[in-house]
Amino acid sequence: MTRKGEQTRTRILDTAARLFHRKGFAATTVNEILEASGTSKGNLYFHFAGKGAIGLAVLQREKVLLMHFLDDVLSRGTPAEGLSRFFTEALEKNRQHAFIGGCIFGNTALEASDTSPAYTDFVAGVFDAWISRIAHQIERAQQAGQLRDDLPPRELAEMVVATVEGGIMQARLLKSEAPLQHTLDTLRKILALHH
Amino acid sequence: MTRKGEQTRTRILDTAARLFHRKGFAATTVNEILEASGTSKGNLYFHFAGKGAIGLAVLQREKVLLMHFLDDVLSRGTPAEGLSRFFTEALEKNRQHAFIGGCIFGNTALEASDTSPAYTDFVAGVFDAWISRIAHQIERAQQAGQLRDDLPPRELAEMVVATVEGGIMQARLLKSEAPLQHTLDTLRKILALHH
Repeated sequence: MTRKGEQTRTRILDTAARLFHRKGFAATTVNEILEASGTSKGNLYFHFAGKGAIGLAVLQREKVLLMHFLDDVLSRGTPAEGLSRFFTEALEKNRQHAFIGGCIFGNTALEASDTSPAYTDFVAGVFDAWISRIAHQIERAQQAGQLRDDLPPRELAEMVVATVEGGIMQARLLKSEAPLQHTLDTLRKILALHH
Repeated sequence: MTRKGEQTRTRILDTAARLFHRKGFAATTVNEILEASGTSKGNLYFHFAGKGAIGLAVLQREKVLLMHFLDDVLSRGTPAEGLSRFFTEALEKNRQHAFIGGCIFGNTALEASDTSPAYTDFVAGVFDAWISRIAHQIERAQQAGQLRDDLPPRELAEMVVATVEGGIMQARLLKSEAPLQHTLDTLRKILALHH
């Protein structure tokens, strides 16, 4: 792809990601993406077969970002410090969005799960990868004596991810960081996380 | 309202609730509600000003059902038995839907929160009422020595509701009760719930 083609593709994806985040996938039209990104119809359809392909490309890009984020926050310091940083930075990321948009994977999980199998499979894979990384981190923290070890890592990790998603939902609804902050604080206490 | 008028209104709301649950609010059109409910346009607009009014009426009806559900499951037996029944019956309700549709309040929280203030306010009120009832139940269970008492009831209740919503999201995504069941089992253990 030419440099200009690459830039056009990126601009379309940036715009689409913003619209999907704010309005949801179903309520966003290709025309809105065209207008908001300043792209011609010909250019858009050169890069993408349609809204479905744009949506999947947005999800793929967000998955890469999430995995980089997890690698970055979890890997520094002790296992417990990594987990603690994950909670802190997850709140910070949501604060940066001013609690608009929420989590694109959670949104897609709810919006598309009964109607779009391709999205469902992809997003299920994202959650599975996310839960696996948290479970691995919890296991390391347990081995280091930095986290309660009376429950299996995978079980705790599933609960952590479900609780974070529920907290993001509440924060988005109330346009306030309080629900997510409370929920993350409670998670720290309940995991007996110390470092 | 005549008995026939009441029946028409109920039929419209039943149909709309089903479509909103499955497809989401934004993706459902008034025409689909008309067709699926077998109602004439004149009849629908006699009862409702438009899709927005139908959506709010559906949410109001679902709120009444949720509050009845909570009153029913929480009030029988000891405080801990009530909470335990809440977990069991929440899973059962989702199983009955075969994990399609999820929680209409969670769906609306994510879908409408950045675009429809009337819905947002209403759904925020539903979550607040739900959290308050769980907090009250937790407080009673703590007083009876049936639940960990090192954390405040409201804090635990916020986490419980966030975790249940996150668990419903995962169950819906995977079309499986496993994620919700795991999450609820972990919640029981983490609350040190015993009766």
